[in-house]
Amino acid sequence: MKIQIINGPNLNLIGTREKDIYGEVDFEMFLKLLKEHFGDIHLDYFQSNIEGEIIDKIQEVGFNYKGIVLNAGGYTHTSVAIADAIKAVKAHVVEVHISNVFAREDFRHVSLIAANCMGSISGFGLDSYRLAIESLRVAK
Amino acid sequence: MKIQIINGPNLNLIGTREKDIYGEVDFEMFLKLLKEHFGDIHLDYFQSNIEGEIIDKIQEVGFNYKGIVLNAGGYTHTSVAIADAIKAVKAHVVEVHISNVFAREDFRHVSLIAANCMGSISGFGLDSYRLAIESLRVAK
Amino acid sequence: MKIQIINGPNLNLIGTREKDIYGEVDFEMFLKLLKEHFGDIHLDYFQSNIEGEIIDKIQEVGFNYKGIVLNAGGYTHTSVAIADAIKAVKAHVVEVHISNVFAREDFRHVSLIAANCMGSISGFGLDSYRLAIESLRVAK
Amino acid sequence: MKIQIINGPNLNLIGTREKDIYGEVDFEMFLKLLKEHFGDIHLDYFQSNIEGEIIDKIQEVGFNYKGIVLNAGGYTHTSVAIADAIKAVKAHVVEVHISNVFAREDFRHVSLIAANCMGSISGFGLDSYRLAIESLRVAK
Amino acid sequence: MKIQIINGPNLNLIGTREKDIYGEVDFEMFLKLLKEHFGDIHLDYFQSNIEGEIIDKIQEVGFNYKGIVLNAGGYTHTSVAIADAIKAVKAHVVEVHISNVFAREDFRHVSLIAANCMGSISGFGLDSYRLAIESLRVAK
Amino acid sequence: MKIQIINGPNLNLIGTREKDIYGEVDFEMFLKLLKEHFGDIHLDYFQSNIEGEIIDKIQEVGFNYKGIVLNAGGYTHTSVAIADAIKAVKAHVVEVHISNVFAREDFRHVSLIAANCMGSISGFGLDSYRLAIESLRVAK
Amino acid sequence: MKIQIINGPNLNLIGTREKDIYGEVDFEMFLKLLKEHFGDIHLDYFQSNIEGEIIDKIQEVGFNYKGIVLNAGGYTHTSVAIADAIKAVKAHVVEVHISNVFAREDFRHVSLIAANCMGSISGFGLDSYRLAIESLRVAK
Amino acid sequence: MKIQIINGPNLNLIGTREKDIYGEVDFEMFLKLLKEHFGDIHLDYFQSNIEGEIIDKIQEVGFNYKGIVLNAGGYTHTSVAIADAIKAVKAHVVEVHISNVFAREDFRHVSLIAANCMGSISGFGLDSYRLAIESLRVAK
Amino acid sequence: MKIQIINGPNLNLIGTREKDIYGEVDFEMFLKLLKEHFGDIHLDYFQSNIEGEIIDKIQEVGFNYKGIVLNAGGYTHTSVAIADAIKAVKAHVVEVHISNVFAREDFRHVSLIAANCMGSISGFGLDSYRLAIESLRVAK
Amino acid sequence: MKIQIINGPNLNLIGTREKDIYGEVDFEMFLKLLKEHFGDIHLDYFQSNIEGEIIDKIQEVGFNYKGIVLNAGGYTHTSVAIADAIKAVKAHVVEVHISNVFAREDFRHVSLIAANCMGSISGFGLDSYRLAIESLRVAK
Amino acid sequence: MKIQIINGPNLNLIGTREKDIYGEVDFEMFLKLLKEHFGDIHLDYFQSNIEGEIIDKIQEVGFNYKGIVLNAGGYTHTSVAIADAIKAVKAHVVEVHISNVFAREDFRHVSLIAANCMGSISGFGLDSYRLAIESLRVAK
Amino acid sequence: MKIQIINGPNLNLIGTREKDIYGEVDFEMFLKLLKEHFGDIHLDYFQSNIEGEIIDKIQEVGFNYKGIVLNAGGYTHTSVAIADAIKAVKAHVVEVHISNVFAREDFRHVSLIAANCMGSISGFGLDSYRLAIESLRVAK
Repeated sequence: MKIQIINGPNLNLIGTREKDIYGEVDFEMFLKLLKEHFGDIHLDYFQSNIEGEIIDKIQEVGFNYKGIVLNAGGYTHTSVAIADAIKAVKAHVVEVHISNVFAREDFRHVSLIAANCMGSISGFGLDSYRLAIESLRVAK
Repeated sequence: MKIQIINGPNLNLIGTREKDIYGEVDFEMFLKLLKEHFGDIHLDYFQSNIEGEIIDKIQEVGFNYKGIVLNAGGYTHTSVAIADAIKAVKAHVVEVHISNVFAREDFRHVSLIAANCMGSISGFGLDSYRLAIESLRVAK
Repeated sequence: MKIQIINGPNLNLIGTREKDIYGEVDFEMFLKLLKEHFGDIHLDYFQSNIEGEIIDKIQEVGFNYKGIVLNAGGYTHTSVAIADAIKAVKAHVVEVHISNVFAREDFRHVSLIAANCMGSISGFGLDSYRLAIESLRVAK
Repeated sequence: MKIQIINGPNLNLIGTREKDIYGEVDFEMFLKLLKEHFGDIHLDYFQSNIEGEIIDKIQEVGFNYKGIVLNAGGYTHTSVAIADAIKAVKAHVVEVHISNVFAREDFRHVSLIAANCMGSISGFGLDSYRLAIESLRVAK
Repeated sequence: MKIQIINGPNLNLIGTREKDIYGEVDFEMFLKLLKEHFGDIHLDYFQSNIEGEIIDKIQEVGFNYKGIVLNAGGYTHTSVAIADAIKAVKAHVVEVHISNVFAREDFRHVSLIAANCMGSISGFGLDSYRLAIESLRVAK
Repeated sequence: MKIQIINGPNLNLIGTREKDIYGEVDFEMFLKLLKEHFGDIHLDYFQSNIEGEIIDKIQEVGFNYKGIVLNAGGYTHTSVAIADAIKAVKAHVVEVHISNVFAREDFRHVSLIAANCMGSISGFGLDSYRLAIESLRVAK
Repeated sequence: MKIQIINGPNLNLIGTREKDIYGEVDFEMFLKLLKEHFGDIHLDYFQSNIEGEIIDKIQEVGFNYKGIVLNAGGYTHTSVAIADAIKAVKAHVVEVHISNVFAREDFRHVSLIAANCMGSISGFGLDSYRLAIESLRVAK
Repeated sequence: MKIQIINGPNLNLIGTREKDIYGEVDFEMFLKLLKEHFGDIHLDYFQSNIEGEIIDKIQEVGFNYKGIVLNAGGYTHTSVAIADAIKAVKAHVVEVHISNVFAREDFRHVSLIAANCMGSISGFGLDSYRLAIESLRVAK
Repeated sequence: MKIQIINGPNLNLIGTREKDIYGEVDFEMFLKLLKEHFGDIHLDYFQSNIEGEIIDKIQEVGFNYKGIVLNAGGYTHTSVAIADAIKAVKAHVVEVHISNVFAREDFRHVSLIAANCMGSISGFGLDSYRLAIESLRVAK
Repeated sequence: MKIQIINGPNLNLIGTREKDIYGEVDFEMFLKLLKEHFGDIHLDYFQSNIEGEIIDKIQEVGFNYKGIVLNAGGYTHTSVAIADAIKAVKAHVVEVHISNVFAREDFRHVSLIAANCMGSISGFGLDSYRLAIESLRVAK
Repeated sequence: MKIQIINGPNLNLIGTREKDIYGEVDFEMFLKLLKEHFGDIHLDYFQSNIEGEIIDKIQEVGFNYKGIVLNAGGYTHTSVAIADAIKAVKAHVVEVHISNVFAREDFRHVSLIAANCMGSISGFGLDSYRLAIESLRVAK
Repeated sequence: MKIQIINGPNLNLIGTREKDIYGEVDFEMFLKLLKEHFGDIHLDYFQSNIEGEIIDKIQEVGFNYKGIVLNAGGYTHTSVAIADAIKAVKAHVVEVHISNVFAREDFRHVSLIAANCMGSISGFGLDSYRLAIESLRVAK
């Protein structure tokens, strides 16, 4: 079973940026733990600040992988193009957010991509990613 | 560790109602499986169609239990009073939805309670409840 | 043929409250006349000020009765939960209003439940109930 | 007792157009049945696709007839001028719709004419017309 | 100097309809007085309930007459087509209203045609027409 | 002179909940002081988390008591049904809030019930209740 | 017969400011012509850039003069206080504008004061003032 | 192959009206060229300023012709009734506009009829009509 | 203890203006009674129709007086500048209204200054002022 | 004559993705046919999922080519930057869409780029591209 | 070169009011430093809490001075009249704000005057004034 | 002291594109002058049409440079992702615009990034950049 994690803009700064919101753990380090935890799952990781490269990656894995865990960062709220890419592929896409987006600024309450995802998980810190993989493991 | 599951209006009809959206499994049956899966957790279940009784229950367990898994059903989108109750208690509250609310009618895209919850999980069918308990197990 | 009439909040005050809008006839008295008029129909009556009890009643009769005549009163404009209950059951539900809601305050122009009902009748005073039963009598 | 039925734009196509919404019965045929059913009422019928001709007809009969059954079709949602005509005349005007307009597109949820009518009936197929005449028969 | 008065829908009922708003004077009678008052001006009068006939008339006189006094009635608030006609012709068009439209329902506060007119006069009863002709008399 | 105090959802937690907003004083204790202060007034107290029970109470006392001091809590912003109940009864109803609702979240700036109350008092902590009773004492 | 002309902010610059919109004639000069034209009317003139001074003047003359011709300039679109003053006095107030406000920026399409005036005249250049006085001369 | 061209309000003035937007060519002249260009297609032309006559024509040809080229002019932005007519018939309807409506006033950016048409072409001057016929020639 | 009462625009007309809303009592007379009632409090009174003079007064007393009772009249709904002044000073400011603003026009439902005040009292006629002083007497 | 076709995000999946909307034909294959059809036109093709690369291409060809056929896909509804690029260059830009965007989700009804294009063509499947080139061939 | 600084409501309290937002420096003191820094420029200063006096000052210097540095304070967001004054005069007007208005309350994000100014500078504390004068020095 | 200038989409065309808005000076040439003027500051320049590359650059210099002068062009109005990047870094970011964005199209009045910047400067042509560097020079 192959699962792709995609992190969008500024998520390369996790552990560095706004620590009260995003925590102090580096994502690379967290990824190692995640791979250990899910020993039987092939986990790939990709980060980009470029909207179109996220679309490229969704298209690349979206017909071969079982699932995609997508934290689209700021593009969550503005990208029709990523939403279209999610709809176009066959893989299950799970939307994740580290913080509880509904408890932040108004513009973060609207997700353009949520409707095209299988489901959505937000607010559990980095644990959101683990829950997303859990959900994909049992998805049909 | 004590966790309370609260189901709001019409969720007593799961397995009967709109099966294409909510599935064919009876919640009681599912609850049995859930309790087996989480053998080490004390799981309580409560369902009511009455907004105020949901508030009563949140207040009752909200100072003693570690967490509450709350599917507020239709009240999700209209109840300031339940949102206030969540904010008033100490327990972690996780919002869950069986269906992907963002892929349904517009009025279901707005949750009045999400901002006061620890996190939110939607779209994974009954598995949303399992993920919510998973998240509460490790919450601090 | 069984038909359930459900009256929502403050409709127990008909005949007492705002007589210029709701008239001077007591609902109990009117019900007696209605039962005489429709001698061949089993007519049940229920009134509650509690949103969740209205949902309970819709669920209780909604799988056995042919139809429900529902005047949800103030909940008409605010209750997603009642709308969900209507959608969940098999009975035909007809929305009725005594006054012409479109000729009153703006917030009364929006019905959250109308979309899930078979049809809607408003503005004919208590005669709205008779017309609703008429419509259910011939409904398939 | 004289009652005028007025059908607005495209309602001459009933029986031909979008049969899943408007049914397969021709209105002329239905009118014959209606006249038989209400043997004691003088029933006139008028259909026009032209907004101003509907106003002309409302003015023509609005001071002599007891009531008008008005299905303004698409003009329901856009015509201040028809609404003004209804307000100007003395006859009771009952708004009818074949389909449940509240279960269709958003722009059909707003009726510019409803506030000026005695009452409103929608969603019962062609039976909406019968109910409207029923209501006018007993109106004072 | 030729001036055309155009009255839109329901304005043929002036003197009959909603007398508290529109007064008790018949427009034909008033027209006679107006013609006497402006003995040196050729005054034409046209009334129609049909939007398109109003456009026809605007086009017909709009290249020959000095001015048009237009009370578009209910079409004032809904007709882009009449607004386009006004813009297309050379004559000065003055918008008039008998009542103070700004003191009535919200939808009467928006005029789609005002921007294309030379000016706008409302609230002076039938005297609005006299003032409009006054203004056209001196217009360049 | 009889006055009824009604507290809505979550106001049973005053003294426990969000102390920076609602203060540390228990309402029962405060009530005792209030009764002493207004020795000549019969003061009744009722609290419920259930919208419909608040309506029941308003109906029960609304035709016999001089006034009602109503803190509808979260229902202030969502309940058309409570607003209708206030309008239906004869007693003076005074809306009170402990905190300054206008200095909090946007959704708390809109009160559905204020228009039907005699007056509104907010922001003075528990002293808001005293002022409300003061106002009712001299009301005609 | 006494009539007061009140000009609001920046209208002291007429003849100087944005000549394509307001024309090249100085208001003082125009006033002289106006007084000659209406020899039998006592015409007073007042201009201020201060909102409250306009209110002072409305109050001062509003119980003694027959009418007020008010060009509130920019305050037209923002001043509830001036609107309240107009409502408070007995004199007829006619709103005038030199330019056609409906053909300019969107924020100029909304007049907060129009609803409280007898009528409204806009778009005729300085001639708007003459028409306003004409209307007041015959007002009852 | 039969194709009907329908032009809405004010389009009879093409060549006369606002030449910077609509060009200087007379539509009759253009029609002649169009007929020559499409020698093998039976082309009919109809123009009316009356909304209902446009509906009449759509109904008349809509069950016999292959396609309709419709420039609804100002009715594009306001007519639910024309939109309903388009949906009711079998012919392909192509919406055309001479000018680029998206580069003009805001109210011209919304087309009520576009959703019911096969496609939409705007901004190419009179050439929009040729392109529309091109598209209908190959439509299935 | 020093308390300043500030009345905004048109409140100098109390007793004269719209008596059904504001009552028949002259404010000066009422002030005398108020001073007698609160013998131990130094009460100052100021009225102005000028927004900026109200700001001047707030600044003048806002660092020396214990409290300000402010009825900003029409400026309540439009003045960011007064709201800023309230925030800038140290005195407690209590917003008062004579009428129940929530039962009047829509634009009166929004107060720009409420958020910066300690509390808000409206609807009790002139008694609103007494209640406001009561509240300030015990404020900390 | 040189014409550049630019396809935006996800349009590389045509023939693969949502076939009921976009058809089953591969764009490369279609391009070959297009080049044959327009033998005398130099046709270039570019596709990118990256917004900025689309801008780069518009700038690159926008001063040398006669026209650009642009299907901006999801960026149509969100990109001010692409709209700015279109305005900055000299080439004629024609907006095309395969599907009828007005018959799909609400957010697809708004095009940020349409106002800056020469014209817009949507709804004709891949034939939209042919029509666009047709239009550019005769553009001045 | 003559430049006028105009400060609007509450800006006389700089150094006293909300020091975390506006800093601790007194404006008079800052002005002295500014005059020294720009030895070759004639700098005038004016502050008023009265909207109309700000307009008076803009008119007074607006035809003689090279530029105006305007911090309209709370009137920035509500004054059409000041915006009109800016448009009426010949001097360059630069809008300045001490704080970053875009990082504060929503109502501060909209400036009614910005469109009529040459440019806008906000967020640099008192240094915003220096930058504004810098910009005026080189303006043509 | 190191300062990075970042120019967003289409700003590479300055001097070529819409000269009436952006002027005729080439940015490279202007940059040379700027470097001479600020001899003591290390000035870096970067331009990209790609949103994500702008984020990359902000991240790259945002922890080492004192300040960033950012003209995000069209992304100003649509990019949550750039706004997030600005918030994540330590450098002071100053938003600049060449033209007065508030005097242009409505969508240019909203800046998604302004709230996260230190300050904002717009409308001074290329001089906006100089002022921004001036502001950063003295920033703490």
